[in-house]
Amino acid sequence: MYMQRLLVTALAAGFAAAVQADEGMWQPAQLPSIAAQLTARGLQLDPAQLTDLTGPTMGAVVSIGGCTASFVSPEGLVVTNHHCAYGAIQYNSTADNNLIRNGFLARSQAEELPGDPNQRVYVTDEIRDITREITGKLDPKLGGLERYQAIDKAQKQAVAKCEKPGVKCEVYTFHGGYSFQLVRQREIKDVRLVYAPPGAIGKFGGDVDNWMWPRHTGDFSFLRAYVGKDGSSKPYAKDNVPFKPRHFLPVNAEGLKAGDFVMVAGYPGRTNRYRLAEEVGDAIQWQYPTNIRWYTEILELINAAGAKDPAVAVKYASSVASFNNYLKNFRGQLEGLAKARAVSYKRGKEEALLQWLGRQDAATAALAGDIAALRGVLAQQRSVRERDLLLTYFQRTGLFSASYNIYRTALERGKPELQREAGFQTRDEAKLEGSLRQLERRMDPAVDQRLLTHFLRGYVKLPAGQRIAALDTWLGAAADDDAALQQKVAALYAGTSLMDVQQRLKWFGAKQAEIEAAQDTGLKFMVALMPDLLAIEKARKQRTGDELRLRPRYMQAMIAYNQSLNQPVYPDANSSLRVTFGQVQGFRKDGVEFTPFTTGDGIVAKTTGEDPFDTPEKEYQALVARDYGSYADARGALPVNFLADLDITGGNSGSPALDAKGRLVGLAFDGNWDSVSADWIFDTGLTRSIQVDVRYMLWIMDKIDGAQNLLKEMGVAR
Amino acid sequence: MYMQRLLVTALAAGFAAAVQADEGMWQPAQLPSIAAQLTARGLQLDPAQLTDLTGPTMGAVVSIGGCTASFVSPEGLVVTNHHCAYGAIQYNSTADNNLIRNGFLARSQAEELPGDPNQRVYVTDEIRDITREITGKLDPKLGGLERYQAIDKAQKQAVAKCEKPGVKCEVYTFHGGYSFQLVRQREIKDVRLVYAPPGAIGKFGGDVDNWMWPRHTGDFSFLRAYVGKDGSSKPYAKDNVPFKPRHFLPVNAEGLKAGDFVMVAGYPGRTNRYRLAEEVGDAIQWQYPTNIRWYTEILELINAAGAKDPAVAVKYASSVASFNNYLKNFRGQLEGLAKARAVSYKRGKEEALLQWLGRQDAATAALAGDIAALRGVLAQQRSVRERDLLLTYFQRTGLFSASYNIYRTALERGKPELQREAGFQTRDEAKLEGSLRQLERRMDPAVDQRLLTHFLRGYVKLPAGQRIAALDTWLGAAADDDAALQQKVAALYAGTSLMDVQQRLKWFGAKQAEIEAAQDTGLKFMVALMPDLLAIEKARKQRTGDELRLRPRYMQAMIAYNQSLNQPVYPDANSSLRVTFGQVQGFRKDGVEFTPFTTGDGIVAKTTGEDPFDTPEKEYQALVARDYGSYADARGALPVNFLADLDITGGNSGSPALDAKGRLVGLAFDGNWDSVSADWIFDTGLTRSIQVDVRYMLWIMDKIDGAQNLLKEMGVAR
Repeated sequence: MYMQRLLVTALAAGFAAAVQADEGMWQPAQLPSIAAQLTARGLQLDPAQLTDLTGPTMGAVVSIGGCTASFVSPEGLVVTNHHCAYGAIQYNSTADNNLIRNGFLARSQAEELPGDPNQRVYVTDEIRDITREITGKLDPKLGGLERYQAIDKAQKQAVAKCEKPGVKCEVYTFHGGYSFQLVRQREIKDVRLVYAPPGAIGKFGGDVDNWMWPRHTGDFSFLRAYVGKDGSSKPYAKDNVPFKPRHFLPVNAEGLKAGDFVMVAGYPGRTNRYRLAEEVGDAIQWQYPTNIRWYTEILELINAAGAKDPAVAVKYASSVASFNNYLKNFRGQLEGLAKARAVSYKRGKEEALLQWLGRQDAATAALAGDIAALRGVLAQQRSVRERDLLLTYFQRTGLFSASYNIYRTALERGKPELQREAGFQTRDEAKLEGSLRQLERRMDPAVDQRLLTHFLRGYVKLPAGQRIAALDTWLGAAADDDAALQQKVAALYAGTSLMDVQQRLKWFGAKQAEIEAAQDTGLKFMVALMPDLLAIEKARKQRTGDELRLRPRYMQAMIAYNQSLNQPVYPDANSSLRVTFGQVQGFRKDGVEFTPFTTGDGIVAKTTGEDPFDTPEKEYQALVARDYGSYADARGALPVNFLADLDITGGNSGSPALDAKGRLVGLAFDGNWDSVSADWIFDTGLTRSIQVDVRYMLWIMDKIDGAQNLLKEMGVAR
Repeated sequence: MYMQRLLVTALAAGFAAAVQADEGMWQPAQLPSIAAQLTARGLQLDPAQLTDLTGPTMGAVVSIGGCTASFVSPEGLVVTNHHCAYGAIQYNSTADNNLIRNGFLARSQAEELPGDPNQRVYVTDEIRDITREITGKLDPKLGGLERYQAIDKAQKQAVAKCEKPGVKCEVYTFHGGYSFQLVRQREIKDVRLVYAPPGAIGKFGGDVDNWMWPRHTGDFSFLRAYVGKDGSSKPYAKDNVPFKPRHFLPVNAEGLKAGDFVMVAGYPGRTNRYRLAEEVGDAIQWQYPTNIRWYTEILELINAAGAKDPAVAVKYASSVASFNNYLKNFRGQLEGLAKARAVSYKRGKEEALLQWLGRQDAATAALAGDIAALRGVLAQQRSVRERDLLLTYFQRTGLFSASYNIYRTALERGKPELQREAGFQTRDEAKLEGSLRQLERRMDPAVDQRLLTHFLRGYVKLPAGQRIAALDTWLGAAADDDAALQQKVAALYAGTSLMDVQQRLKWFGAKQAEIEAAQDTGLKFMVALMPDLLAIEKARKQRTGDELRLRPRYMQAMIAYNQSLNQPVYPDANSSLRVTFGQVQGFRKDGVEFTPFTTGDGIVAKTTGEDPFDTPEKEYQALVARDYGSYADARGALPVNFLADLDITGGNSGSPALDAKGRLVGLAFDGNWDSVSADWIFDTGLTRSIQVDVRYMLWIMDKIDGAQNLLKEMGVAR
């Protein structure tokens, strides 16, 4: 009951935080406790309504896996970002008809295109606190590994009890283990592409404008959720029927103006707002620079190979885009953290926390000891971080990941379901098989071999304390001889069948003993390595178990302390449903003021005719003619994108931006450059979310792409 | 007299252009004709005063070769940009004391450091129109080559008549040959480094902020002009004395505020405001993309070599910086020209011009024929442009340029002075010798060889019509065999003595016959090539001669037409002295407003501690403490840089920004990104110059660097 009580305290702390606009990714259940703040900002709904996940507003907000979306018609029509529907658009593109470039519009449901088979729509039904079930009865003196295993088992039990066909359940960890919540979602498996504007609209500005303001991206697309005739979740089938959501969002075609209330509901992925100063320091000193170095080297290697062979370039195009995106992000993080002098800022806060703890009652003051112990766990993690990072890079090679997944699945299949490692349970096998099946689409054996060689070159430089005995044995003299290393890896690739899809799928069905008897070099390699990898995993679980005991104690102290300062207390993002609210507003820097709306004139000004500023001629002419119809704002301009002081991060892409009455007024799709480092420190003066304005969406649909069928379906008659 | 009259007409056209703020790089002599506009803007001086080149304002403005500067004390103290004094700062840097990084302050004249021996200060004494002497008596029917030679000879005669020791004269061509003006300048040869702030101030923001706003660069430094005790121009000598300028600029330590009148006087290098649409198209379609490709390839080649050998990296550091700078510039030009849809804009103007001509009297209407003929000349130039561009790249290699300059000088020495090619006259020999002497400082033979090989690979791809017979002969079978080509060039470098400075200087003194008898492979190569190079040059002169007849006719039409539209008519920049005026003001874009001042707070916000945002700790602390002394503006902020709608370009760097009374209020040092393409099209809404604010300069000198001696000398007592 202790934790439950403290959770309530944490919620109450939010209430007092009215001066702190507008940091906070609030759980729906927290909203009534900050009702006064919401109302003061301008919300015209009862905040209690927003706590009902199956109610009028939240019932329309869905996850599509990595992105957010929302229902906008009673016929299961879903709106999200263009970049979130990218997979579905690409999946339906052909050499003759590149839908990324040309766009696509189904003029009837019959014309809608099946999406990638892995495309999902998840409709959250329930979020329930199960902290008591997970950690309520644990002995505080339990060792790390035992604690980890007990929590893991309790989570799996909760999931197993909850899941059934068409229903996906997941336990989310909040505040580093301070609370656990079970999320139950309806899983819709037939998701079709309805409408996407041309890429020159949907990704206008491309990488150049990514994370930038002023912005002019028409980052929206439409999907539709389908289910079986009986209403059950079914994979794509021609005779499936549109899903009837409990609720869908009404559209406010008038949009918003500067200063208006706005909120966003969605599934933010991850933030680090409550990290210790030393964790921020590690990110700045080691994590980002090291990953930047590795990413840069990987890109050089892939680009060199791609320059020689266009087929290779195509296979790695998506990886390259992702690496470049992360590189820009990492650099932005470093830039932002440096400007904020983040470590000394965090250290100052930490010292103040410790001083404050010293002034509290004995039980509270004792938390300082747990914080010190947490530092000890972090130091342990740091002592093997280079090795652990390298293992994640190994996993990025096709050979390593395929052999690992094949052998590990076989190992886990021998265990009772609840003892199988998370990610390798029966429920995960379809996904594992899918990734083994699709490996070639994004992997070239020769490049894969060069990558693994490159990572092994990093490995052989590790200090003795971080070496993996089985890998050293496998390497033998090649650890000190680069030519021998290259030969060793070449032989590994020459002697494996795992670069062949049929062979991979065959081995995925094989038993442990068969794999262990295999002559395949890739499998032999993994069989030799696995005991050490499992030992490393076990040690990691032990540390994680310790962390799961200590971080909640640190968070307990942080929450109490922040509460004493009237600071908002909300959990770090963890891909669970959140609400953030604030107002439409720009931001200032020295010598420049970023105003909250961009307009059609800005598209004309940016247009060069070259990608990514190659506005379609029809749109260009309409913009030059200022043919805005009824979509113009009060000043006669066509709003395109707008800024708000909302607290979002990756995963919020596609989230509906809602007005004070819960009506759709746009879609969140990005943040400004200063928001990149907001994952660590939210700066109320600078952190801004970027939304595509509903008026721009409607104008494109109406005047440019002729999507009147969808406007009608959404109830927007003009 | 016809031309003289039209010139007056052109001046009058400016007068009518009051609505066109604030395009125009005006010649001082033009200012009285736009007096009303100047006064309306806020000038509180008699515009006529500004026509006096030896008067109180213009008499203080000097050229330092590629940059502008101004006298700010009776003792020859000169202020210019940090990046303009870079050579002098670098020249005095040692491994132990890097003045670029540390900055430098002479606390007395005795501590001032000699600059690079090539550093000059040019004080303009007189600008005189000599169009009548140059082209007044030319037969309009003269062929191109004869016209070129006649103009060339007349120019050399005018220069020869004007020059004497310590006096440099130059004929400047205006409006493509519509007028010629003789500029007489005092040449000061002993220029010393007085004061430069640390690089972290002087080039704060570095390449990242280059051409960007908001900007926070303390881009200022001080030099001092020295002459012999007798007042004559002398190279550096310890007992030289400070030059006493006729005038120096008073300092307005109060600075300016938004909306205030401001003007800049300086030496802008080159603009292309009156080019034909097809010339703009060539720049977009061919010139910039081709140079971008070559520059990128050259950079890759140099960087690869530099990565292997730090000494090579040092030698080419300045070239690499310059290439990168130009690359960014070229891309900015392309971006700006694309956004402005420059070709169709120019074509529209051209069609309007032709229509207008058709409505004029017969003599004026006849100009249309000359415009058509000009197009013909441009077409001829286009037909050999790939070859001609390659020749300029050949000249960038040490071996080609050294052998060319040695042999060409020897050839020209055999002619009467006035018949010697411009650039190879007696007056040019010191400069030629200097560049031969210093070649190794910026050239590595192995890299040079690779560059020449690379350019020759480009050459062998030229179409037959652009091939050079002697070069084809020299190449032989190597033209179709890359391995042979590499060997050929390797043998060229192996057999030459020209990579040795003493040998180069020896050959520079040699006679034509000696060179022609030389066994040195570099000289043999050049002796073989020279007849064809001279033939190419002769053909180019013929085209230039034609252009010198036709472009003035086109400009005559343009001037008359612009006059009819009340458009400003000023000559394109040509490195001669100009005045531009306007007001302190920012600019707007869709979604963003760039406000006209940056402040110390912005430096704090940009500071990361890493180059180029590594504010010195002393400055950082003073800014955080807002220790602005008397240098704060009315709102209590410390102004750092400011924007104005002034019309400047490369060469204006270091130009004094002057208030309505002609007092120093800052230094121009850059333009915003939108101004990059203003060389072709000036956009009054977007083109902005960037100045360092005098208050920031004085604050740095006073509070950070302790340069009270200079403040006192400048009469700024605080």
